[in-house]
Amino acid sequence: MAKSRFEYVKKFELPDPLMPNTYIIVRIDGKGFHKFSDVHSFDKPNDVRALDLMDTAAKTVLNEYKDVVMAFGESDEYSFLLRRTTTLYNRRRSKINSSIVSLFTSAYVFHWARFFPNTPLLYPPSFDGRVILYPNIEEVRDYFSWRQADTHINNLYNTTFWALVHGGLTTAEANKTLQGTNSKDKNEILFTKFGINYNTLPEMFRKGSVCVRSLSVEEPQKSFPEQQAAHGIMTLSIGPSSSGNSNTVLSRKEKVYQGTEGSPMVLHVDIIKDLFWSERPWLLS
Amino acid sequence: MAKSRFEYVKKFELPDPLMPNTYIIVRIDGKGFHKFSDVHSFDKPNDVRALDLMDTAAKTVLNEYKDVVMAFGESDEYSFLLRRTTTLYNRRRSKINSSIVSLFTSAYVFHWARFFPNTPLLYPPSFDGRVILYPNIEEVRDYFSWRQADTHINNLYNTTFWALVHGGLTTAEANKTLQGTNSKDKNEILFTKFGINYNTLPEMFRKGSVCVRSLSVEEPQKSFPEQQAAHGIMTLSIGPSSSGNSNTVLSRKEKVYQGTEGSPMVLHVDIIKDLFWSERPWLLS
Amino acid sequence: MAKSRFEYVKKFELPDPLMPNTYIIVRIDGKGFHKFSDVHSFDKPNDVRALDLMDTAAKTVLNEYKDVVMAFGESDEYSFLLRRTTTLYNRRRSKINSSIVSLFTSAYVFHWARFFPNTPLLYPPSFDGRVILYPNIEEVRDYFSWRQADTHINNLYNTTFWALVHGGLTTAEANKTLQGTNSKDKNEILFTKFGINYNTLPEMFRKGSVCVRSLSVEEPQKSFPEQQAAHGIMTLSIGPSSSGNSNTVLSRKEKVYQGTEGSPMVLHVDIIKDLFWSERPWLLS
Amino acid sequence: MAKSRFEYVKKFELPDPLMPNTYIIVRIDGKGFHKFSDVHSFDKPNDVRALDLMDTAAKTVLNEYKDVVMAFGESDEYSFLLRRTTTLYNRRRSKINSSIVSLFTSAYVFHWARFFPNTPLLYPPSFDGRVILYPNIEEVRDYFSWRQADTHINNLYNTTFWALVHGGLTTAEANKTLQGTNSKDKNEILFTKFGINYNTLPEMFRKGSVCVRSLSVEEPQKSFPEQQAAHGIMTLSIGPSSSGNSNTVLSRKEKVYQGTEGSPMVLHVDIIKDLFWSERPWLLS
Repeated sequence: MAKSRFEYVKKFELPDPLMPNTYIIVRIDGKGFHKFSDVHSFDKPNDVRALDLMDTAAKTVLNEYKDVVMAFGESDEYSFLLRRTTTLYNRRRSKINSSIVSLFTSAYVFHWARFFPNTPLLYPPSFDGRVILYPNIEEVRDYFSWRQADTHINNLYNTTFWALVHGGLTTAEANKTLQGTNSKDKNEILFTKFGINYNTLPEMFRKGSVCVRSLSVEEPQKSFPEQQAAHGIMTLSIGPSSSGNSNTVLSRKEKVYQGTEGSPMVLHVDIIKDLFWSERPWLLS
Repeated sequence: MAKSRFEYVKKFELPDPLMPNTYIIVRIDGKGFHKFSDVHSFDKPNDVRALDLMDTAAKTVLNEYKDVVMAFGESDEYSFLLRRTTTLYNRRRSKINSSIVSLFTSAYVFHWARFFPNTPLLYPPSFDGRVILYPNIEEVRDYFSWRQADTHINNLYNTTFWALVHGGLTTAEANKTLQGTNSKDKNEILFTKFGINYNTLPEMFRKGSVCVRSLSVEEPQKSFPEQQAAHGIMTLSIGPSSSGNSNTVLSRKEKVYQGTEGSPMVLHVDIIKDLFWSERPWLLS
Repeated sequence: MAKSRFEYVKKFELPDPLMPNTYIIVRIDGKGFHKFSDVHSFDKPNDVRALDLMDTAAKTVLNEYKDVVMAFGESDEYSFLLRRTTTLYNRRRSKINSSIVSLFTSAYVFHWARFFPNTPLLYPPSFDGRVILYPNIEEVRDYFSWRQADTHINNLYNTTFWALVHGGLTTAEANKTLQGTNSKDKNEILFTKFGINYNTLPEMFRKGSVCVRSLSVEEPQKSFPEQQAAHGIMTLSIGPSSSGNSNTVLSRKEKVYQGTEGSPMVLHVDIIKDLFWSERPWLLS
Repeated sequence: MAKSRFEYVKKFELPDPLMPNTYIIVRIDGKGFHKFSDVHSFDKPNDVRALDLMDTAAKTVLNEYKDVVMAFGESDEYSFLLRRTTTLYNRRRSKINSSIVSLFTSAYVFHWARFFPNTPLLYPPSFDGRVILYPNIEEVRDYFSWRQADTHINNLYNTTFWALVHGGLTTAEANKTLQGTNSKDKNEILFTKFGINYNTLPEMFRKGSVCVRSLSVEEPQKSFPEQQAAHGIMTLSIGPSSSGNSNTVLSRKEKVYQGTEGSPMVLHVDIIKDLFWSERPWLLS
């Protein structure tokens, strides 16, 4: 087709490639979700339906983008980790950022009715997104530790705050009561005033959601150590096996596994300690 | 709340401010909409429901972001113009880009059922977005001329292509027939073979959709010139009026109008020529 | 020649193009020139030799880079304006910035002995540089006004400060004396204590140096208005002329003059008011 | 001092911080040095005086910037490596780039007469500079391997080319003779036609120049292995020592040595193999 004399305006689209061989994290945040959660009567301090919806939207992103190897979410935010060597969209910053935030948003609205069958969506919610690069493994680990520590801090506060409110305080009074308190104080308030042992609350609330892929293997439960089973994960790092053959095959597969195959699943586990990462060496390789 | 030892990772979030006092355009594009339109049985070459849905999503963006003073859409793309002096999100590139693409996407899914009552949405669609800066008015004009010229070129091609296909050709044959043809040839094919006068087709198809705000004023129709009425616009640039008082009030308002008040509406008009812009001096002021 | 297996590292050199059609200013600043001027016994508050050397280095830049149409300097800094449409080095930010600061530095050292014949250069001085983009004429005007206003403010302060010091005060006492004073106060101190009328001091000190090109034309002195002659400029904007022919020829030339031909010369004139710019329409065209 | 109404133009100076915790390399290149070397009658294929001058300018940079831990140069280019954790100028890209290229240029002109006592500098030479970031050690190693491999390739070509020219060929004939030849061919030409064993040519020409710092220690020669002594380096990695005390002291120092103390010196050694790097663990730590 003939080019128009207006085509020169394309020259103003400047390149925005991300540095090669660097970890890419895309973090999205809900916009105005304080109001959004009020309007849609979210349970306080945590609404399981809303969290499940967030997790489902995150899984949609992992299903679409094979180079997104992991995600971590809490409240109205989610962070996506892309493989260090990904060449997705030629590593164009805006393209990666906008595509992921758009798909996440789309999935959130698309699946709303499934998780909130009795709560009509009153207006379209939105998220913003940003790209952060990390050169080293340690920093990626610390990034996710930062988010999970934040989950804990926020949840402990919110749990105590809403216990006080449900116990009869105004929100202003609850706020005042919590001013200057540390973690220990809040645990104490929960336990003595409300009989709540914080550590027994659902891990989804205390640890947030981590979304990773797992290769489906036959009967993985059998050979799994207790610890891993507790995490509900299915990996290929299978221990002693009666079948030398299958072991060899699996080992070979394991070597090339880059976290891009298999179905994404959501866990509520510690990602600050080493175990989660050592079980999934492909995440940071 | 106590800061964790992981907080240092925030330092890797680098600033991305856009140059001040420059026109900002955010263009979003549907991802995989060829397949999406097939799966959802869009009418060819143009599906009014799909275009109306795009326009509605664009209006949602203008309703939310007062500094988006105009938008232009065709097919599965939409371009949003922000005021040159906007300080939205401190002009952060990623924040502006992701917020607009997310809200547009959200509105698209949210309003789907209204425009496609008999066509269930089968999976969540997504869009990408990019930010382009233009220093001068002329370039902004040429940007939108570029998009509208593109609308014309694409629509003429598609209209002729689908006329041929509906007339019995395979898509391969239709493609071959159109190879090397210019606009005149296509018009000729449409008219002689199918009795279609291209210029009488709906302006929505030929010109795309432009979304702008208009101040609602009392009885604007009376004093409007024919031409403006034909465009369906309501502005304050009222000519001679019998009421000196109201004129004064309006003039005062007019001075400060920056295109950020009033309800967004969708027009299908020429935006290459001067009229559209001279009627709305605030768009590029 | 054979490519080595190390060539992949070139991929880490990311593009850094500057927005097209925007004014480019490169400002360089001396590094550690307080110490440098002490070590080399610069006259205080202004050293004519040092300023002449700066001006000469700036002229070297204009001689080398035709698209640098103007420069303004004071003290140990200089700002260079590139034509809005320049495609120098494909508008690569780092290349433009580094090339100009390098050539300026080189010329400064190269010409040192000419301006300081009795003062050996004791160590190599250096400058840093930055690129600033401006979309509009008004901002470029205001940028240079900002620098010239700064020249005035600094020079008035320094002139009064050193008058006090030369008059017997310690530098600490002089500093204290000037604390909280405004321009009027400083003028008053200069006049009453030292008999100095600030406005009669050399324009080089009060206005800084502006470097522009002028086309050499035949017998320009004859037809120049007083005002222009006073500025020492030679332009082609010749008024009424006895020779219709030459007038026509010059007018034709004038139309295409972009400030890139002719020899750079240094003026000490007001660049805040309109005259300087109206005489040289090519600077901002 | 009072702020002027023009100060708003400062808002157009946008931040340009480099990613934290990433290796920074600044590479400078001579501009128009083909002509510059002709005009100043450089010896061909290599001019020791010019290379020594380059090395001296590089040492000036290392003396001034403690966080530049290493540099590698050949011909008219030099690459500077900054510590991964440097906070020099808050890691501002333009500031780092321009400051280094400016100081290098300044030193080049400043020291010219010392290395070319009988060749007056005819005009001020200049260099451009660029910043490249590398996230990983391996890439930094490969970057320097790339430059040293390039040194070898260029020098072998130039040595053969100029041998042919000095042997009576025109430059066009020499070019033609070398077309399509590989390294082995060139070595053969040098040996059979001119009796030159390429591998016995000075290492400065074949390997380029690497500039690093060394801590000066007492009597280091005694305890140094042959290999290190051959490289002319003085490190603290001293082996068995009769003095337990001094050993302890040195070990403690060694732990904190980051390559920022001591005098820069120039070596002509292999930096592709591991030895150079393993001897200086601080370079990439």
